[in-house]
Amino acid sequence: MTIIDFRLRPPLGGFLKMALYTETERRDRTTRIHGFEPAPSARAQSMDLLLAEMDAAGVTMGLVTGRNSGRYGSLSNEEVAAIVARHPGRFVGAAAIDPTDRKRMTRQISEAVKSGFRAINIEPGSYPAPLHVDDRKLYPAYAQCEAEDVPAIIMAGGSAGPDLSYTDPVHLDRVAADFPGLKIVVSHGGWPWVHQVLHIAFRRPNVYLSPDQYLANMPGMDDYVRAADGFLADRFLYASSYPFTPVKDYAAWFRALPIRPESMEKALWKNAAALLRLDLK
Amino acid sequence: MTIIDFRLRPPLGGFLKMALYTETERRDRTTRIHGFEPAPSARAQSMDLLLAEMDAAGVTMGLVTGRNSGRYGSLSNEEVAAIVARHPGRFVGAAAIDPTDRKRMTRQISEAVKSGFRAINIEPGSYPAPLHVDDRKLYPAYAQCEAEDVPAIIMAGGSAGPDLSYTDPVHLDRVAADFPGLKIVVSHGGWPWVHQVLHIAFRRPNVYLSPDQYLANMPGMDDYVRAADGFLADRFLYASSYPFTPVKDYAAWFRALPIRPESMEKALWKNAAALLRLDLK
Amino acid sequence: MTIIDFRLRPPLGGFLKMALYTETERRDRTTRIHGFEPAPSARAQSMDLLLAEMDAAGVTMGLVTGRNSGRYGSLSNEEVAAIVARHPGRFVGAAAIDPTDRKRMTRQISEAVKSGFRAINIEPGSYPAPLHVDDRKLYPAYAQCEAEDVPAIIMAGGSAGPDLSYTDPVHLDRVAADFPGLKIVVSHGGWPWVHQVLHIAFRRPNVYLSPDQYLANMPGMDDYVRAADGFLADRFLYASSYPFTPVKDYAAWFRALPIRPESMEKALWKNAAALLRLDLK
Repeated sequence: MTIIDFRLRPPLGGFLKMALYTETERRDRTTRIHGFEPAPSARAQSMDLLLAEMDAAGVTMGLVTGRNSGRYGSLSNEEVAAIVARHPGRFVGAAAIDPTDRKRMTRQISEAVKSGFRAINIEPGSYPAPLHVDDRKLYPAYAQCEAEDVPAIIMAGGSAGPDLSYTDPVHLDRVAADFPGLKIVVSHGGWPWVHQVLHIAFRRPNVYLSPDQYLANMPGMDDYVRAADGFLADRFLYASSYPFTPVKDYAAWFRALPIRPESMEKALWKNAAALLRLDLK
Repeated sequence: MTIIDFRLRPPLGGFLKMALYTETERRDRTTRIHGFEPAPSARAQSMDLLLAEMDAAGVTMGLVTGRNSGRYGSLSNEEVAAIVARHPGRFVGAAAIDPTDRKRMTRQISEAVKSGFRAINIEPGSYPAPLHVDDRKLYPAYAQCEAEDVPAIIMAGGSAGPDLSYTDPVHLDRVAADFPGLKIVVSHGGWPWVHQVLHIAFRRPNVYLSPDQYLANMPGMDDYVRAADGFLADRFLYASSYPFTPVKDYAAWFRALPIRPESMEKALWKNAAALLRLDLK
Repeated sequence: MTIIDFRLRPPLGGFLKMALYTETERRDRTTRIHGFEPAPSARAQSMDLLLAEMDAAGVTMGLVTGRNSGRYGSLSNEEVAAIVARHPGRFVGAAAIDPTDRKRMTRQISEAVKSGFRAINIEPGSYPAPLHVDDRKLYPAYAQCEAEDVPAIIMAGGSAGPDLSYTDPVHLDRVAADFPGLKIVVSHGGWPWVHQVLHIAFRRPNVYLSPDQYLANMPGMDDYVRAADGFLADRFLYASSYPFTPVKDYAAWFRALPIRPESMEKALWKNAAALLRLDLK
């Protein structure tokens, strides 16, 4: 069995300073709302336990994302590269950018692509000065990702910004329309705008959805699942949002969803492997 | 059995001059759309019948709200107080405000709190000059309610304003974020923005939902019900919107929803009693 | 059996130059997403086959709409009139307008009404210079349609404009509120704003919904179906969006939906016949 987990934050380095690992009570409450018990590895902040849980779940690889966020903490691209290097074959990296300095942002993307990052991670609403997804400050980054043929992961769902306007799907739709050659992964799946983001994915063939934790027992779940086994079969990406849900139990839960085997395999790893150009089987 | 009905307009005083009681054909059509037959008390405009229906349904108390609305009519706080006084233990009052006169609004809130009102009723879209929920004219009221620790009931759902922009949930989300210490009851439950308002309630622990009539056989109902038995169990408030639905049949219908007994009891009265500081059991 | 198909584009004239008939691979993929196989008549671009499929499905009449669109192609009102004339009793016409020339637009509506068109077709987001549904350029047309008592078909759903803002339901709601005497048919049913457009239809008695292809196996479908058998029973209009779905299989699929016979008959033809003033039985 092969699984690529498209959102997995191991208990290492800068992640340990994020609310993910510091506000444990709130995190564990969220975990239970999604229908799971907190992972032992998350509670113990143990990398050994996490690797064992990944093994037990069949999670071959996890995507680790750099972050540049006032509210949610930061993780440099160097740290991401170090995590990937320390655990060969278990993690793949997405690089963060700094949208406040256009030239630096341009260099960050170029260097990330050269040094083996497989995607650029863009979190518009969570930057120290929050941006909407279609803010002009981000357009050079989108253009560059399209030109360099590297996917952009855009956080456009959940609590992605100071208020609900930051997940308003019109912003995402405009970017998808303006950069038809850019592969866009919507992390948090555009939730709670379930109907609207499914329309966008229906209309724009360059949009991939990864509802991650917001799939689990949240309003709209059934619509996501039907799409994952329907028109979105080639563009749905499995993700646990660990430590918000446990790597192992989330995988077991996901594999029991009413998704046909062929679509299930695409969601679990084939779509991610193709998108990130990973040579798995 | 104990039930607190968070939206109940008895056939008394100013209520009788509102569309609730004057446009009976439209009202009864709405009642039937929600799956009920009009209440005998509503048709006869009989307080005795209503009290008997409340008794038969186990509805201990009803929240009566003052109103200051061009389109929907008005009911002064004095009238609300009189209704509460005339039927000891059966009604609890929420006070209306006048957002066009800031100083008067300040006095209204102070006096309401002093004289026993348990909540402030704010209906932004239905004022003679309609406001969005996050209009700056309302911010002093929200700040004062937060400071005086009195819940604000905000009508932010259904036909709450001249057009759909008045229920756009971004306005509500901003108020919930800007006043984290303010307990906000969303009357009409933010309907039809079901997914979005559930996101807001998921993110903002100070937001309570009361979908009232818009729960009954309306799109999104199942999502509300699951939330009432899940993450929203401590912040869901039962309400009939009487006379739009019948007090008795609505209660019977609601009690048959798939909500576990502990959550059901919270929805029916425990959440409301804690919020309004009522000493019931 | 009688069926009026409120959105049917036969393989004739200008239609053959539209993406409907030129981008066949994309069209057929869409057809399959909706759960159908492409119609033989669509593939062969055969009017004889289409008429045979209409007969087999019991589709008495199809509504043919003029179009004035940069992105989607155009079809003049003269062409529509010719199609209607060539197949007596099988087609009914809706006239396109040109919103860039107010005086011409006024004449178009007057002439259309005089010459037997039964509705005016307005596609705000697909004009060469896209408009939102409540753009002031369209208000004279809405006012005239209201005055001349001819229904306006407004495309406000699906991929109706360059981005999702063109289907934002607030625009539709404002038009429905500002022209309460105007009968508005929402083609594409306001999808994907399912909850919101059902609220609008619940609130505004002048709004009719025709979700057409976006009903078929798309998110929100169950809510549309319940409305068609509930509060919307008198204002739901059947449509296949042929050639996006096959006339025959769509009819068979629709008739199997859980809609009671009386509501089903209204949806299939009675509502359309009353709205278009067609003398069918």
